[in-house]
Amino acid sequence: MAKKKMVYFFGGGKADGDGTMKELLGGKGAGLAEMTSIGLPVPAGFTITTEVCDLYYKNNKNYPDGLKEEVEENLKKLEKLVGKKLGDPSDPLLVSVRSGAPVSMPGMMETILNLGLNDQSVEGLAKKTNNPRFAYDAYRRFIMMYGSTARGIEREKFDHIFEKVKEEKTRKRLGIPADKKVNDTDVNAEELKEVCQMFKDLYKKELGEDFPQDPQVQLWGAIAAVFNSWMAEKAVTYRRVENLKGIIGTAVNVVQMVFGNMGETSGTGVCFTRDPNTGENIFYGDYLVNAQGEDVVAGIRTPMKLIELKERDPKVYAQLEDVRRILEKHYKEMQDLEFTVEEGKLYMLQCRTGKRSPIAAFKIATDMVEEGLITKEMAILRIKDKDIEGVFYPIIDPSQKDELKKKFLVQGIDAVPGAATGRVVFTAKEAEEWAEKGEKVILVRKETSPEDVGGMHAAQGILTATGGKTSHAAVVARGWGKCCIVGCEKIDIDYEKKIFKVGDKVIKEGDYITLNGSTGEVFEGSLKLITPELPESYYKIMKWADEIRKLNVRTNADTPYDSENARKLGAEGIGLCRTEHMFFDTEERRLAIQEMIVADTVEGRKKALAKLLPFQKQDFKGIFKAMDGLPVTIRLIDPPLHEFVPHEEEAQKHLAQKIGVPFEKVKHRVEQLKEANPMLGHRGCRLAITYPEILEMQVTAIMEAACECTKEGVKVLPEIMIPLIIDKKELQILETKTREVAESVIQRMGVKVSYMVGTMIEVPRAALLADKIAEVAEFFSFGTNDLTQMTLGMSRDDAGRFLPDYVDEKKTGIFKDDPFQSLDQEGVGMLVKWAIEKGRSTRPNLKVGICGEHGGELKSVKFCHRVGMNYVSCSPFRVPIARLAAAQAVIEEKNKK
Amino acid sequence: MAKKKMVYFFGGGKADGDGTMKELLGGKGAGLAEMTSIGLPVPAGFTITTEVCDLYYKNNKNYPDGLKEEVEENLKKLEKLVGKKLGDPSDPLLVSVRSGAPVSMPGMMETILNLGLNDQSVEGLAKKTNNPRFAYDAYRRFIMMYGSTARGIEREKFDHIFEKVKEEKTRKRLGIPADKKVNDTDVNAEELKEVCQMFKDLYKKELGEDFPQDPQVQLWGAIAAVFNSWMAEKAVTYRRVENLKGIIGTAVNVVQMVFGNMGETSGTGVCFTRDPNTGENIFYGDYLVNAQGEDVVAGIRTPMKLIELKERDPKVYAQLEDVRRILEKHYKEMQDLEFTVEEGKLYMLQCRTGKRSPIAAFKIATDMVEEGLITKEMAILRIKDKDIEGVFYPIIDPSQKDELKKKFLVQGIDAVPGAATGRVVFTAKEAEEWAEKGEKVILVRKETSPEDVGGMHAAQGILTATGGKTSHAAVVARGWGKCCIVGCEKIDIDYEKKIFKVGDKVIKEGDYITLNGSTGEVFEGSLKLITPELPESYYKIMKWADEIRKLNVRTNADTPYDSENARKLGAEGIGLCRTEHMFFDTEERRLAIQEMIVADTVEGRKKALAKLLPFQKQDFKGIFKAMDGLPVTIRLIDPPLHEFVPHEEEAQKHLAQKIGVPFEKVKHRVEQLKEANPMLGHRGCRLAITYPEILEMQVTAIMEAACECTKEGVKVLPEIMIPLIIDKKELQILETKTREVAESVIQRMGVKVSYMVGTMIEVPRAALLADKIAEVAEFFSFGTNDLTQMTLGMSRDDAGRFLPDYVDEKKTGIFKDDPFQSLDQEGVGMLVKWAIEKGRSTRPNLKVGICGEHGGELKSVKFCHRVGMNYVSCSPFRVPIARLAAAQAVIEEKNKK
Repeated sequence: MAKKKMVYFFGGGKADGDGTMKELLGGKGAGLAEMTSIGLPVPAGFTITTEVCDLYYKNNKNYPDGLKEEVEENLKKLEKLVGKKLGDPSDPLLVSVRSGAPVSMPGMMETILNLGLNDQSVEGLAKKTNNPRFAYDAYRRFIMMYGSTARGIEREKFDHIFEKVKEEKTRKRLGIPADKKVNDTDVNAEELKEVCQMFKDLYKKELGEDFPQDPQVQLWGAIAAVFNSWMAEKAVTYRRVENLKGIIGTAVNVVQMVFGNMGETSGTGVCFTRDPNTGENIFYGDYLVNAQGEDVVAGIRTPMKLIELKERDPKVYAQLEDVRRILEKHYKEMQDLEFTVEEGKLYMLQCRTGKRSPIAAFKIATDMVEEGLITKEMAILRIKDKDIEGVFYPIIDPSQKDELKKKFLVQGIDAVPGAATGRVVFTAKEAEEWAEKGEKVILVRKETSPEDVGGMHAAQGILTATGGKTSHAAVVARGWGKCCIVGCEKIDIDYEKKIFKVGDKVIKEGDYITLNGSTGEVFEGSLKLITPELPESYYKIMKWADEIRKLNVRTNADTPYDSENARKLGAEGIGLCRTEHMFFDTEERRLAIQEMIVADTVEGRKKALAKLLPFQKQDFKGIFKAMDGLPVTIRLIDPPLHEFVPHEEEAQKHLAQKIGVPFEKVKHRVEQLKEANPMLGHRGCRLAITYPEILEMQVTAIMEAACECTKEGVKVLPEIMIPLIIDKKELQILETKTREVAESVIQRMGVKVSYMVGTMIEVPRAALLADKIAEVAEFFSFGTNDLTQMTLGMSRDDAGRFLPDYVDEKKTGIFKDDPFQSLDQEGVGMLVKWAIEKGRSTRPNLKVGICGEHGGELKSVKFCHRVGMNYVSCSPFRVPIARLAAAQAVIEEKNKK
Repeated sequence: MAKKKMVYFFGGGKADGDGTMKELLGGKGAGLAEMTSIGLPVPAGFTITTEVCDLYYKNNKNYPDGLKEEVEENLKKLEKLVGKKLGDPSDPLLVSVRSGAPVSMPGMMETILNLGLNDQSVEGLAKKTNNPRFAYDAYRRFIMMYGSTARGIEREKFDHIFEKVKEEKTRKRLGIPADKKVNDTDVNAEELKEVCQMFKDLYKKELGEDFPQDPQVQLWGAIAAVFNSWMAEKAVTYRRVENLKGIIGTAVNVVQMVFGNMGETSGTGVCFTRDPNTGENIFYGDYLVNAQGEDVVAGIRTPMKLIELKERDPKVYAQLEDVRRILEKHYKEMQDLEFTVEEGKLYMLQCRTGKRSPIAAFKIATDMVEEGLITKEMAILRIKDKDIEGVFYPIIDPSQKDELKKKFLVQGIDAVPGAATGRVVFTAKEAEEWAEKGEKVILVRKETSPEDVGGMHAAQGILTATGGKTSHAAVVARGWGKCCIVGCEKIDIDYEKKIFKVGDKVIKEGDYITLNGSTGEVFEGSLKLITPELPESYYKIMKWADEIRKLNVRTNADTPYDSENARKLGAEGIGLCRTEHMFFDTEERRLAIQEMIVADTVEGRKKALAKLLPFQKQDFKGIFKAMDGLPVTIRLIDPPLHEFVPHEEEAQKHLAQKIGVPFEKVKHRVEQLKEANPMLGHRGCRLAITYPEILEMQVTAIMEAACECTKEGVKVLPEIMIPLIIDKKELQILETKTREVAESVIQRMGVKVSYMVGTMIEVPRAALLADKIAEVAEFFSFGTNDLTQMTLGMSRDDAGRFLPDYVDEKKTGIFKDDPFQSLDQEGVGMLVKWAIEKGRSTRPNLKVGICGEHGGELKSVKFCHRVGMNYVSCSPFRVPIARLAAAQAVIEEKNKK
């Protein structure tokens, strides 16, 4: 076996390694090599590979043969390149020794700076820099880092000495009053020299040997310290907790030290190659003269803008401009970079893809396409779902930073992004009433139910004390793109007193609050909101995405208003129109459905249904018109009947009186409807099996609406969808009934309307027996909300108690994502794939879509593409995400090939 | 195409057809052919095939070419064989013309008797039989049947005429008082002759033509009548409702009439080839001299026993003995037969497999093996699940027939067979208290919950107003073989007044009632019960079954008592020990578990769990001892925690006081535990993920018990089962924990105990990902109750509202069987098969069993055999059924090959 290379050099424009070698060189080592080789000015150095770390442990903490020689060789190379020597008493080479694992483990492992200093070279450095304070401060830091990190002396002991000198010498010298702190920068060279001596004394006392003056001893001590830190308890724990497996060890980077604090021609900065807020193609960043990296972050002094540097030091700026050009050309991405200028010479310390605002993401992507840097496909891949959400929803004006801190009230779960502000109300009815009077309100509830839909719609935002991201409130609000925070368990609502409490704080009805649905934060008072305008670049990206994608994107919408809105957002039809929401729109409708439910004869039910028919028909007509020329999938009634009836005695009495039925009967019927597990109860098509007259009414309303619209010249493509099917025969009975009713309407109305009859696949059995079901169904629509609940045996309303533990990687990491947010591709996905294959085995032209929450989630939409669906359907506000995801899926598939 | 035979002859010991040709000849035609060809004395005749019926309709109600000729030919053959001619004025051949479809459609189609009579031949018959009354009565019936059936005259018009003659002539002649009814038999020949004339007049008046005197015309009219009845509305409806498909038509049987009412040497009878009550090998039946078949059924006169006939008419009896011998030899089964003796000559009219009592079933099967008639395999196949139940459970003494009618109270759903009598109590607590005082009680509840288990056990039987066959009450009672009636919706329970009502009837606490769990009937008062003793033949059959079967049969048992009992019934281990039932046994235990649940710190929970540990350990020891040498599968805690806490304020206050916690806290915790869909909530292994300390306690108890038993010389084979798993990683976390705890107990106790760790497969996702899960699980146990609920999206507690419609063949027929009773082999079964295959693909020696309710159901057990399970596990009382089913499965598999 050929001997493996153990040390990789970089410097002088050349590097042994490159950016792809993270496994071997660690993230930092690979990055330094890459930057060096693309011609960036990087401090030179070398990397000892992760394999050496592995061998070190396999070999009982002994270095592999030949390592010493290879390090020696590379150190010589470094000294030659830099023109300084390690330990040179007059002009010493100083190096940093840092860990660098293949995966970032922030703060887990050790770093030693300024290595190479000793009692002689510190003097040399002082002379050379003409800055004894700088030199002794560096020496002080080195002794402390080496002593604590490499040799295990408690850090506190060093701190204690330093503090003592500060108190006893510096304070006295400067006359700093007792109530003021002595800063590190107050300590002068003399005092620092003293500190160094005391540190060395401590070192000797603790370890029984002198602090090493030989830089070779220092170097190998530091290398050992880095390797040992790999197996330190906190690092081992971190890897276990983060579930980082298969990483063999850390690399060690030995790099020339550069100093930004060596005077007015030195400095340090961080910058972005483009404006991360607007995306504009300008150089954007901060620079701090005569400072080190930490000083920028700490914000001690106000840095200058890069543009100011241009004037102040055009040479340095020119170097930076060079770097910017090289970086963007090389990485084809906006970069975030850190650099240091040492006496007029620029050194790049780090670069990485820069974070940016949603608007900037679009702008940068489209600009780069136009600049010829990247392709349209690449641009599309760069956009994230959060970017799309970010350009749509109103946000709290970030200029109110201070107020945000002051007015923060409580943290909930971020269910629907965006922001909302308004006055607190506690019932749906009040929300409607206040809104009618022109008030902006926030509806605050323990939880919401279908009866609250009107009030939810009227409110600016919704806040609930219970529920998760897929609770009723979240799902309904998402459909409207309405700001919603759920599961805010710390709020204690008292409906009677019309208040809610957060700890001791009391918020009354009518008080203003502001919600940040993107973060889950609730604020007191009314904060200023801003609604970003959709940038041109958004439309460009979406146009490109539409050209590429193969999946159709429909929307889930129950009203003409939502339908129109969704169409504007790019929806190509309705994939799910939930007919039951229509029953709650007005009291008249509510009473009719409730009368139907309370009736105990077919005739009684038919009478009540007859009242509902014109309403449903009218709604369907509106939707058909809004979707002129596009398909509309209408799902027949789905929820269990108890969701439609009032559960409070007061409301029951009201209902009894309104429909002329004894209160006792109403109460009894409501009692009867209670179920142990309503999710698995009498709902969906089971209602149509028991009460065929409901199906009759709904199909009549759909087809009469379709016929009338057709007469008016609207192109109608109704797809009637039967929910909760578990068996071919069950579907056959209902399909036959549906067609009978539909055909009789068509005949009666004398118009030709073609329609389809299909089913939801939302129960595992339906997926399993999809081949048989497809013999009857013309289309499948996967109801992945329920399919997930049943396949996982997990009620999404109840999962809040344990699902967080399942998704939390630090606790169990059983699921990578919340399966109600992102489709469980392994389990539920297996059923989906199976059902599509089986379904198309008996009906090759079976139309297949998805209408669960997952239809608007990035990863899930990609899955839907891969398994060959025809379309996805999602809330209007998620339509753009679905369009993007569908395009990304095509590109990713192409890239794989 | 060769012309198809359209008419099949039978008679004189030969038949064109045979018993297998039901499709072509109908059930009746095939039976008559079979009986004829095995040498039984059957009246001769011929069958026109169902294909002719099909052609008749396809050909617009015209007979196919050649039919006339074939019928003519066969009629001649019949006349020749019988020695009489149709329409012969002096000694006419009379025939019946009957329908006969491939599937029995009782009462749906037409029959015409005595065809061949006319004004001349009726006189000939009168002379020949020397019985004018008989002849004219036959003629009267014929005219009426022909007129109404073949020609559509309303039946009432004939009845009206007959009534008129009875009133105006017979009553006067016999001087029957006005308040007494004139019987048909009172009418004499003269009057009957007059009736015939009036019938003919009616016929002419209605149809404008004379009643046909030509027997050929009569014959073809009757044939057409039968064919036309196939498409009569009621028959079409019947087939639709019964979902009878693919049947092409009815056959027509033309058969020589025989008369049991031709004097003292004539008669009619029904008999069994063995005693259907005891199974004894004796000829068993009734005979009525000078009578027709209807007379026996109507019970007008008391028939004689067959043994009496032997003395009275040894020649006839000898003919019957011959028949009995031939039948049993041919069918190798006990037969139920109908026959007529016409002037000393025996005619067999029908034979079929005879119904028998459960005890007789065993006796006949084993006797026939010993007689060399059938093999042991055949004997095993003859036993039905109901037969096993029938020999085990107490029954209501059937001698109380009249009382049964009088005391019938209400009908419920037959959940667990057997009978029980006792005094009504309404709470579990009272049931326990009364039982302790020696009272036999029936526990009557709206529904039961785990808290009621003690009282349920104390009661003789259980009656609930709600729930189905797999409700809590049913499942728990079945485990004990305790009589249970559920879903008795007509009873209206008032817990406060301690009464229940059925309509106006009020049953108070302390009143006696009797339950028949086999039929679901509830009776007032205390009826006498009898407990049959297990017959020798039962043991024989079970021994043979055990020799044949390959599946092991285990039991679901939670106590040492049940374990012992199950072992006696043949259980070979425990497949499911539910640890949570143990928590309800005493108040001490209940309080400990409740304290654990209310605690809000790990320490608090551990403290409470420590109290439970000794109880659990003690129970496990008892079970291990009872199952010495056999495997015991123990499931860790499964139900959601809210099942363990009291929901009434009173009980909550009691708990709060007992465990020293504020009432508000208890109440709040109970509130918190409420779930929207508890079936899919925080339960099963999810509890162990959230509260690992529960798993720790349970595994400690199991392993300490196992170690202590081992020390005492008991052979212990514990299998620790983790419920509700949905993911490999989830199982891995809990398996690791389980093994850690187990190993530490083993080490501490210093005993070697081997144990297994496996999982339930009860969530669809676990079945889908079985290959991965089997990498961790040493065994799978299919929890098909939950797997059915989730795969079908159907809560068994709620399915009562719609499942009956799904199973009712007349309503929808979507399911053949209740999927909670008999495994849904198509849907759930697909998952089971998949999971076994996938599981063994990664762990070839994976042990597989089932522990759902289905493990004791005949068809489901056979399925378990076919898919290659290692064992089934069921309630103790179902163990014998499972043993039988397992053997039947092997035999059926062998027979298929």
